[in-house]
Amino acid sequence: MSDAWKGFKPPWFEEPPAEKSYRSIFKWGDPCGFKHPNEKLYKEIKSAFGLTDEDFQRRVNEGNEQVRFTKPIGLTPRQIAQIAKIVGEKNISTEQYDRLKYSVGKTIEEAMKLRKGIVEKVTDVVVHPRHKQDVKELVKFCNRARIPVYVYGGGSSVNFGLRPAKGGITLVLSTHMNKIVRISELNQTVTVEAGILGPALEDALNNAPARFGTKHRYTCGHFPQSFEYSSAGGWVVTLGSGQASSYYGDAYHLVISQEYVTPVGTFVTKEYPATATGPKVNDIMKGSEGTFGVLVELTLKIYRYMPENRKYFGFIFPTWESAVNASREISQGEFGMPAVFRISDAEETHFGLKLYGIDGTIFDRAMQLRGFKPMQRCLMLGTTEGHAGFTANVKKNVKRICKEFGAMYLTGFPARKWEEGRFRDPYLREDLQDFGIITDTLETSVTWENIHHVHQKVREVVKARPRTLCLTHASHFYPQGTNLYFIFFARMDDVREYIKFQSGIIDAIAKSGGSLSHHHGVGRMIAPWMEEHLGKEQMAVLRALKKHFDPHNIMNPGGQLGLDLKGRDWRKI
Amino acid sequence: MSDAWKGFKPPWFEEPPAEKSYRSIFKWGDPCGFKHPNEKLYKEIKSAFGLTDEDFQRRVNEGNEQVRFTKPIGLTPRQIAQIAKIVGEKNISTEQYDRLKYSVGKTIEEAMKLRKGIVEKVTDVVVHPRHKQDVKELVKFCNRARIPVYVYGGGSSVNFGLRPAKGGITLVLSTHMNKIVRISELNQTVTVEAGILGPALEDALNNAPARFGTKHRYTCGHFPQSFEYSSAGGWVVTLGSGQASSYYGDAYHLVISQEYVTPVGTFVTKEYPATATGPKVNDIMKGSEGTFGVLVELTLKIYRYMPENRKYFGFIFPTWESAVNASREISQGEFGMPAVFRISDAEETHFGLKLYGIDGTIFDRAMQLRGFKPMQRCLMLGTTEGHAGFTANVKKNVKRICKEFGAMYLTGFPARKWEEGRFRDPYLREDLQDFGIITDTLETSVTWENIHHVHQKVREVVKARPRTLCLTHASHFYPQGTNLYFIFFARMDDVREYIKFQSGIIDAIAKSGGSLSHHHGVGRMIAPWMEEHLGKEQMAVLRALKKHFDPHNIMNPGGQLGLDLKGRDWRKI
Repeated sequence: MSDAWKGFKPPWFEEPPAEKSYRSIFKWGDPCGFKHPNEKLYKEIKSAFGLTDEDFQRRVNEGNEQVRFTKPIGLTPRQIAQIAKIVGEKNISTEQYDRLKYSVGKTIEEAMKLRKGIVEKVTDVVVHPRHKQDVKELVKFCNRARIPVYVYGGGSSVNFGLRPAKGGITLVLSTHMNKIVRISELNQTVTVEAGILGPALEDALNNAPARFGTKHRYTCGHFPQSFEYSSAGGWVVTLGSGQASSYYGDAYHLVISQEYVTPVGTFVTKEYPATATGPKVNDIMKGSEGTFGVLVELTLKIYRYMPENRKYFGFIFPTWESAVNASREISQGEFGMPAVFRISDAEETHFGLKLYGIDGTIFDRAMQLRGFKPMQRCLMLGTTEGHAGFTANVKKNVKRICKEFGAMYLTGFPARKWEEGRFRDPYLREDLQDFGIITDTLETSVTWENIHHVHQKVREVVKARPRTLCLTHASHFYPQGTNLYFIFFARMDDVREYIKFQSGIIDAIAKSGGSLSHHHGVGRMIAPWMEEHLGKEQMAVLRALKKHFDPHNIMNPGGQLGLDLKGRDWRKI
Repeated sequence: MSDAWKGFKPPWFEEPPAEKSYRSIFKWGDPCGFKHPNEKLYKEIKSAFGLTDEDFQRRVNEGNEQVRFTKPIGLTPRQIAQIAKIVGEKNISTEQYDRLKYSVGKTIEEAMKLRKGIVEKVTDVVVHPRHKQDVKELVKFCNRARIPVYVYGGGSSVNFGLRPAKGGITLVLSTHMNKIVRISELNQTVTVEAGILGPALEDALNNAPARFGTKHRYTCGHFPQSFEYSSAGGWVVTLGSGQASSYYGDAYHLVISQEYVTPVGTFVTKEYPATATGPKVNDIMKGSEGTFGVLVELTLKIYRYMPENRKYFGFIFPTWESAVNASREISQGEFGMPAVFRISDAEETHFGLKLYGIDGTIFDRAMQLRGFKPMQRCLMLGTTEGHAGFTANVKKNVKRICKEFGAMYLTGFPARKWEEGRFRDPYLREDLQDFGIITDTLETSVTWENIHHVHQKVREVVKARPRTLCLTHASHFYPQGTNLYFIFFARMDDVREYIKFQSGIIDAIAKSGGSLSHHHGVGRMIAPWMEEHLGKEQMAVLRALKKHFDPHNIMNPGGQLGLDLKGRDWRKI
């Protein structure tokens, strides 16, 4: 993004947050990483919210002060000593800062509160297990002593999945349990400890010939926006999806086998490519969000890494309907799927063209000339991956179909620009919130039949609030449907107002027939809607499994998945 | 298969079985359908078993006599009247023949016994529910009255999955509950009643433009060898795989949503292409083999039907190892998968070349000239499906890889020959058994690392028995592994000997690390191995689910999946 500002430039926060500050906890990603709005985007924001440069003179609620709170520790000194005995003294902490750090995720609600120094639920003891044997002993001990156990991987939860609602201990898996256990080139699998983060895994796979002596280079195929700060175990227990999921599949599909430590025992699921030996326990565990046990090790599919074959594409469509129709035709065309594959609605396209630096370029002028109107036109971008002939053929068919639906080809430029910033967009959040503007997201999955209805209903709710932006895209495609990802921008300071606003949107999703989540998971935030959404019979199945694995409700208790939720107010648990 | 015999031709059974005879129950498929061995195969069989034409003069144990047995009905007249009240008098039967017919599947053990008029477990009352509401009321009534409920779809179970071990009632879903409920071209799904059989479904989809006014023709993509006599519901609850699964996926992957009637309630899973709302109840139910409840309706993915793009290929490899290596390279190549995709080991290739009529052709001479030696050479055959450019590119890459691994191209001829007989090979079974030769199958899934070990260990056990053939192929491919499908031929009349022989093979599969089943399911036959195979922790998960759905154990009780099995002898339940 160009830094050559012509007009007033707001004083964006440019330093790493102060040590042990609230900001160091809620800030996204790398402490030294920033992605500020560019001038075009800044102007657009000012105009959208009716603001002037005056409003961007001084940052508010920076949260750069030291963490300080009073929350007694619920465990006895003897219990803490017993835990220390299991993992070693240096692998536990009861320091205030640590207790808070590992108790929060990345919801905007948490950021709003932490900016004001408001501390809610915190864990009693932070524990860094060294290996799965530690986890086994910890779960055994906690089950006997009825101590709640929470698990922290990369910390990127956006639904209060990490919130230690009942105190107890939080296991941080990413500290030590982040190793590659084994790579099998024959089976095309990698076995990892659950706490490994995306970049470490991907780097090892890309460089497998040098590191493990394999013949080919590999990729994990899973690139969520949180890639840099999410763990392989987290991907699976929350049912995440990567940006290239249309080709590689969702986290659900990437898992060959798993090892879980539960209060009623430890087990490893079988490592078969497919099997017909009754309901698949390997799949039953996926999405359990820490409520059945701790995922300690997993074997993932890997794929040949051939970036030299990657092709990029970008199109502009006259309308959202035409973009949806074309993407459906592509998804159902039986010629293979694109890897990255995204369509933006008119409002997101408007901002996206600015964010990706397309606004004002030759592409912009060509679009205008050809009659693709702002706030009507819709962007599609993507990549194809795989073997050379395959990627060429997919791109050829994508072009054929897009042309049929009235699109103009924009070359690979927009996709390349998008790719540059693919993991960096969340960094914008802090800059905007420093000036009282929140940005948040909700997402759902939809059938093709229902996509427009859900889109309209959510937009109605959001746009009913004055000066509120609603950017929508679909980014995970299947022959049977896709997802809708909503990004909101609003000037908002009051947490209660925010919660009400967010509830209204989740209501709109639920009532219009979207799934409560396509890939963010449930956590506690969505939990109050679960029983009505799934129905009491299906909720009872999840509760039966919970009761089996965790009879004393020590695993991530207090609202998670709605399993032990009575009424709607998980915040009061 | 050519019918022009030069030498002696055994008196193959040529008429439909006598009405209400045992043979009409155990005979595979169409009563008027036959596929006799051709002369080459007949000669090969004689030689393999050291037989002469003398041994094929007279058929034995034809089982063509009327069914006759004495088994008291366990239900009271009042209970039967109550059931009749639910479904209507004409939709129940307590006739001997019906009771037996709907109590057996297609195991060789059942055929051996029925040929001798030995009748084991039979249902008390055969019930043909008209619709899901009937099933709901029946399950409710039976749960209250503690009457066991078994479900019969197409009747092709090869593991005693239909065996009414505890008496009670058997619901036949294919009689009335065989309709297409809805087709959604937008969502590319079809909703069907669970009892619909393969041909009715596929025919409707192929002709969807005329029948439902769709723009495109469709296919269900699922073609198990039992296609003509298996139901859509059966495919899912037993985790079947079709012959084109390498491209379309296993039954597990074809299911978007399901409606189950269980003793604790009825529910429909959500129809989303993907979702992150906790463990997927839709997937938990798959493979439950009638032990959790009755699958009454399901929504399946469908695919564009483009037979005009189908390409055929066939190759001969110098060795099994080279065929395995090539098929692994194809499965991991990232250019898309073939649809039908099969490799045969040396022994199966030897018979396959005769069965498919390749033996003695120009291809055979070319193979001999090029040094592909009988009992070493291995056949690969397959098809590619999908959009035109896709199928051409997959075939191109298959050819490239096969050449690298030393194979000779055989054109599409073997695959076309195979396709002609794809659903008809099971008809050979009766002809052989009429002369005392049994043919049976067992199957497993394997990782690439373990394929040769499992193959060798199973062959060791089978070949330790004199004059016993063991034909093996792999026919369902994944980047992470494949399946092994073993076909045995043996001269055997004694059921106890047979059971011991079969147990030895299952032992060999289990001990060598294969899955207990890739796509036949568990039923009762494999049940005794389940607990050791999955481990007690995972078996406990299945039992917890069973207890939740079916607290009084009325759904398919008596050994199924090993859930209520104590000890190894399910035959004594």
